[in-house]
Amino acid sequence: MKVNGEPRRTIWPANSGRAVHVIDQRWLPHRLDIATLHDLPGVVTAIRDMWVRGAPLIGVSAAYGLALHMQRDPSDAALAAAAAALVAARPTAVNLAWAVNRLQRALQTLAPADRAASAWAMAGELADEDVAVNHAIGRQGLPLLREIASRRQGRIDVLTHCNAGWLATVDWGTALSPIYQAQAEGLDVHVWVDETRPRNQGASLTAWELGQQGVAHTVIADNAGGHLMQQGRVDLVIVGCDRVTARGAVCNKIGPYLKALAARDNGVPFYAAMPLSTLDLTLDDGLVDIPIEERPAREVSHLTGRDAEGRLVDVQLLPDGSTAANPAFDVTPARLVTGLITERGVVPTEARALRAIAS
Amino acid sequence: MKVNGEPRRTIWPANSGRAVHVIDQRWLPHRLDIATLHDLPGVVTAIRDMWVRGAPLIGVSAAYGLALHMQRDPSDAALAAAAAALVAARPTAVNLAWAVNRLQRALQTLAPADRAASAWAMAGELADEDVAVNHAIGRQGLPLLREIASRRQGRIDVLTHCNAGWLATVDWGTALSPIYQAQAEGLDVHVWVDETRPRNQGASLTAWELGQQGVAHTVIADNAGGHLMQQGRVDLVIVGCDRVTARGAVCNKIGPYLKALAARDNGVPFYAAMPLSTLDLTLDDGLVDIPIEERPAREVSHLTGRDAEGRLVDVQLLPDGSTAANPAFDVTPARLVTGLITERGVVPTEARALRAIAS
Repeated sequence: MKVNGEPRRTIWPANSGRAVHVIDQRWLPHRLDIATLHDLPGVVTAIRDMWVRGAPLIGVSAAYGLALHMQRDPSDAALAAAAAALVAARPTAVNLAWAVNRLQRALQTLAPADRAASAWAMAGELADEDVAVNHAIGRQGLPLLREIASRRQGRIDVLTHCNAGWLATVDWGTALSPIYQAQAEGLDVHVWVDETRPRNQGASLTAWELGQQGVAHTVIADNAGGHLMQQGRVDLVIVGCDRVTARGAVCNKIGPYLKALAARDNGVPFYAAMPLSTLDLTLDDGLVDIPIEERPAREVSHLTGRDAEGRLVDVQLLPDGSTAANPAFDVTPARLVTGLITERGVVPTEARALRAIAS
Repeated sequence: MKVNGEPRRTIWPANSGRAVHVIDQRWLPHRLDIATLHDLPGVVTAIRDMWVRGAPLIGVSAAYGLALHMQRDPSDAALAAAAAALVAARPTAVNLAWAVNRLQRALQTLAPADRAASAWAMAGELADEDVAVNHAIGRQGLPLLREIASRRQGRIDVLTHCNAGWLATVDWGTALSPIYQAQAEGLDVHVWVDETRPRNQGASLTAWELGQQGVAHTVIADNAGGHLMQQGRVDLVIVGCDRVTARGAVCNKIGPYLKALAARDNGVPFYAAMPLSTLDLTLDDGLVDIPIEERPAREVSHLTGRDAEGRLVDVQLLPDGSTAANPAFDVTPARLVTGLITERGVVPTEARALRAIAS
């Protein structure tokens, strides 16, 4: 998608073939910084400290991390250690483990001397595949927006949470891909952007990328979505997801469970968009089985913004002596999810349908 | 309640009898500022710009505003104009109109020359009455906490939203009054404090006053409450309220509707605490009849915190060119509210029961 009018991806290989460039998303929307990651520790840091975030993007980043490490030490032991370090960097997102395991399995069958070149090529393929999959998610989701436009006059109001746009992927995004394709088709689409505390991915990333692309949007406090649905001002909710169970429970950056309850209470359809790699058929009951990452209290107690002079300033919000808890994800039960928008079609959250589309 | 170990109220008359002192809550939790309001415009500004906030406290503040204006001009016209200006300062809270109307009606029966002294006395009575009412709300709510303690071991986890503590009233608070009285009784009570975006009353005010009083608490993003309820980590929700309809729909600082849905979904009791003056028997259907204040977008796009040097800094969170919407209240339907904690008892959200307790 576009940055200052020029097409961009979130991650791309250095010409040297010995590093990878990423948009360092910690400074958005105030500053566009490109970081160059030279080695495995650099990639682990970028994933853990959320220079890159979003389930699909961290999967591709991890693949490049593995490839960079193979250039230094292609041994079996190094491969296993690198894979473990990458998977541990963010425990909740299943795409991370999926991407790492896929590369690891393929590389294990090769002689160590062949691993570096092959890993590099596979990371590139994974990136291209992500772009194609996300484009397909957009095509599959687009009819949901067309249907609203065909039914009545006026703009289509979509509510989204966190950032499941192109910044969360290599390009196009998941939840925002149908929106970009609706825009391209000339539909009048407007996005309510949940701020998404505590890390404000909505206010900083989703608002930024929608703005860069010229999509109408309005940021709201996470508290406001229920009220807007009561007022009939939301046609559709589309969120991304970090992990989906065999029965269709959806794990996402904390908050969507509350929006799904409000959507149900007001008859608003609630969809989660995801590549099928996000589906974890080994998980039965999301509420029990998905490990929920507890992130640092400082993400709640402090916040970075831009002061009047344009400087980025970290400010404290809590009184001295007060503490915060920071569970980073929640699980929306399948019963509250209207359907999953995947690259192969929109599928209801039922075990049988999910198994069928994934096979 | 206590500030640095000393008992305080949020509002008290100046010794001169010609001004009123308030805690200027805009700078909490980082700085304790006392403001002196000398006249009606000062009081209107303090209410409108939220130096003072919380339905009961703005009612008392308005009463002092009216009294100060009667010292300057006790005519019928001045009385009517002052009442109108005060009510318009915050359109959603019913206590404001209730307090202003009560004083206005009483003053209209007096000769202009007697109005100033009488208004001053009535404002003081209103403040004392608020303290007594809030203490009674605490006594009525306390058995809900005792019941949990009698049923099982371990701490009692109460979730609250916004600030309905002593800072929202003259003293004691509404939603927090039962908690302070549980603490005094030696119950092991812990409060999950919703941050309460966009103005962060939870993170800044509720956390501060609980900390000053030594009540265990943890601040959470507004997104986290549903997840905590799913995990069985919330025993009880108690929020304040700004207006309650004849059928028991509860209007509150935006967000509680989402928490009430999650409470219902997880079998957690959801109570709203309020003085009976918050009940508006003229309103039938809350979703249609309650005017919802739309506050400035800047409250969402910018935020004030304390930097590393202790300075208060206003920072921008949104990208340039993105806008925000800021509906300030939502309405929780009566069907989702377990009961209302009032000074006369805990009452179910049914029209007949509400009429009975109010009469």
